[in-house]
Amino acid sequence: MDKEIIKGFSHLSKEDKLKLVASFTNNPEKSEQIFKSFWIKDEAFAKRFDEFSENTISCFGLPYGIAPNFLINNKRYAVPMVTEESSVVAAAAKSAKFWAEHGGFKTKIISTIKTGHIHFIWEGNYQKFLSVFTELKKRMITRTNNITSNMRKRGGGILNIELINLTNELNNYYQIQVSFETVDSMGANFINSCLEEFADELKIFIGNNENFTDKEKECEVIMAILSNYTPDCIIETWAECAISEFEQLDIGMEPEKFAKKFETAVKIADVSPFRATTHNKGIFNGIDSVALATGNDFRALEAGGHAYASRTGRYRSLTKVEITDNKFKFILKVPISIGTIGGLTQLHPLAKLSLEILGNPKAKELMTVLAAAGLANNFAAVKSLVTKGIQIGHMRMHLINILNSFNASDKEKEKAKMYFKDRKINVDSVRNFLGRE
Amino acid sequence: MDKEIIKGFSHLSKEDKLKLVASFTNNPEKSEQIFKSFWIKDEAFAKRFDEFSENTISCFGLPYGIAPNFLINNKRYAVPMVTEESSVVAAAAKSAKFWAEHGGFKTKIISTIKTGHIHFIWEGNYQKFLSVFTELKKRMITRTNNITSNMRKRGGGILNIELINLTNELNNYYQIQVSFETVDSMGANFINSCLEEFADELKIFIGNNENFTDKEKECEVIMAILSNYTPDCIIETWAECAISEFEQLDIGMEPEKFAKKFETAVKIADVSPFRATTHNKGIFNGIDSVALATGNDFRALEAGGHAYASRTGRYRSLTKVEITDNKFKFILKVPISIGTIGGLTQLHPLAKLSLEILGNPKAKELMTVLAAAGLANNFAAVKSLVTKGIQIGHMRMHLINILNSFNASDKEKEKAKMYFKDRKINVDSVRNFLGRE
Repeated sequence: MDKEIIKGFSHLSKEDKLKLVASFTNNPEKSEQIFKSFWIKDEAFAKRFDEFSENTISCFGLPYGIAPNFLINNKRYAVPMVTEESSVVAAAAKSAKFWAEHGGFKTKIISTIKTGHIHFIWEGNYQKFLSVFTELKKRMITRTNNITSNMRKRGGGILNIELINLTNELNNYYQIQVSFETVDSMGANFINSCLEEFADELKIFIGNNENFTDKEKECEVIMAILSNYTPDCIIETWAECAISEFEQLDIGMEPEKFAKKFETAVKIADVSPFRATTHNKGIFNGIDSVALATGNDFRALEAGGHAYASRTGRYRSLTKVEITDNKFKFILKVPISIGTIGGLTQLHPLAKLSLEILGNPKAKELMTVLAAAGLANNFAAVKSLVTKGIQIGHMRMHLINILNSFNASDKEKEKAKMYFKDRKINVDSVRNFLGRE
Repeated sequence: MDKEIIKGFSHLSKEDKLKLVASFTNNPEKSEQIFKSFWIKDEAFAKRFDEFSENTISCFGLPYGIAPNFLINNKRYAVPMVTEESSVVAAAAKSAKFWAEHGGFKTKIISTIKTGHIHFIWEGNYQKFLSVFTELKKRMITRTNNITSNMRKRGGGILNIELINLTNELNNYYQIQVSFETVDSMGANFINSCLEEFADELKIFIGNNENFTDKEKECEVIMAILSNYTPDCIIETWAECAISEFEQLDIGMEPEKFAKKFETAVKIADVSPFRATTHNKGIFNGIDSVALATGNDFRALEAGGHAYASRTGRYRSLTKVEITDNKFKFILKVPISIGTIGGLTQLHPLAKLSLEILGNPKAKELMTVLAAAGLANNFAAVKSLVTKGIQIGHMRMHLINILNSFNASDKEKEKAKMYFKDRKINVDSVRNFLGRE
């Protein structure tokens, strides 16, 4: 492409942006046509859609699938999942069906507190600051009354404001840590708006405090921002059954042996960060798919979840197994900070429909669905790993993609599906079967 | 929805699946119509697309945007980004433009090694096992010769096989750790296929070893699987300039003060996990957007990146700042395991076009683009945080979404854009401006 800086790209029309970008490809005309073939047909929505983000030239499609038969807290759900990865939806669906027939998923929301901070540098006497902190808190709350009024009506708002001394970590570094209840919204914008007001108030308060020395009247606010680490917005979800019930699974071993092996696999994920990372990745295959389908921010969930997995000083499994007498219990404890209003949840027609399919849950109920999807996917993955291995099931689902990558004909596909029924599938074995180079 | 388990859902036609799912919504006919409006028009591709995943009833669209003006290792790129979050693309674009005018992003790929493990339980003498391990390695390599032959032709394959004694972590627990070079593919399926063969070979080898006692001839392979923790598939990317060059940024403070404040903000992200989580989340806003646009698996990147962030025993920032003399250097070190072949990279028409727009890079070059996008987004976020605060820019981008959520008319939107030019934007201030309930 051109070596010059492109100026004013954002001001071009969508058509012109597209034309310019297509010019960087081998066949600009064809590329333009492909990009346009993905444009959203409904004009009113297309405009809204393009405004979700910036410099939008097309719409990237991801498969929208359904895992039926989730039973969560005795309520049945067909769960919408958006993922590009083959076998994620199938695994969730299979796992959900087994558990629906054995009591389903149960959940306990431990808390729904979200946190934000004013990070600031202050050279002064900590005790002196503490002694006036109650007054500062009052002022902060008053100052944000107009921002918080609607949230308070909905049952949320500011829960607590604390001064945290971190001067042993970094010279003169303090946090004002604020906890919030944001009810049905994820709350990032609400929290940030409050925090920025607090930061202004902090500067005024410190600057005008008569008991402070001149030096103490200075304070450098570095930033004011919510945290995606939400160790107090936590849900626990579990599924349990008598070990003998595993007979109904296609595991090729005694239920007791399976339960024990499964338990060992989860223990391994607890002691080996190499394994824990992949183990938890499988949990997020489920969680993110539902987050995407409902218009929630999966980066926030990922960051919060993985940071939580490392909270003990070692990166560990988010799930655990408890075997007592003849009972098997599989438990996931994970922070899940999401919304059912705000963001794109109601603006993207498919996100809105996802919520409808789930019965228009409140945020707490939606947390249970994401968590159950995470546990279901983890159960399916560990089950495969300790029985037939991950490849046989995964590659069966992925076979069609490999065949497509070789442009296999329908006839070849049919033959391949038969041939690979009991054979190992990989790119080379498929290539050989098709007789491709 | 129906309280009964839905049987045979996966065997229904797409139409029938959709009808059933739509029946769970308030207005089934309309819902069906909305879902269908998102169906991909090109029939050949629609079929391929539906086969990416399972139980597909529609196509979930995410905005496909472009951040022009990335300069990476002296080469210019227009970077495709797929994200639902407002202001991510704008932030990347703005940041990239500034750095393109100041030397651009430079990168160093530290290594591209990927790892997988056979996790097994073995009660025996470790030294005895070690003494025969070279023989086992040979057999493992021979056994997978057919699977690895194409990979070897492309310059990749098996690099090393080690026995790791973790019996101090878990009774009788060992790993065989295998490192791979997978060249231009992400390699998950290749690695897993090799590992499952190795696991079979391990059982045979141990079972037939004449020097082993009867007890030592037993070995329970718990699982064989690649790791998404890739601390040896690492890229470093950085941008640097003279501090005085920050004058050209709209920062409202002296360049020296800005540089110092920026440095403090990054130090805070290093000592406070609350801040580090959000800080790194912003990095992944960039990385994941490019991963999605190029058909790569963002859950793998997230898991590997966040686990890496916690490797020292505390969850920390992935970026750091170095200020020496009058130079400012901003550095990101992150594991990035992606591919330009395999998976959906060549199967999704827009992923394929993304790669074309980027000049059909090899995997190593694509790593540089993802990393640069991550650094660009982090630079933009920290810059906003330490200057005007995150809300003014982010909420300006998000204003249109808030207006849309109130179904504002075009006229109202125009007025609102003017009105909020210098005013604080939040859901309530917009609600008040529009005079909505």
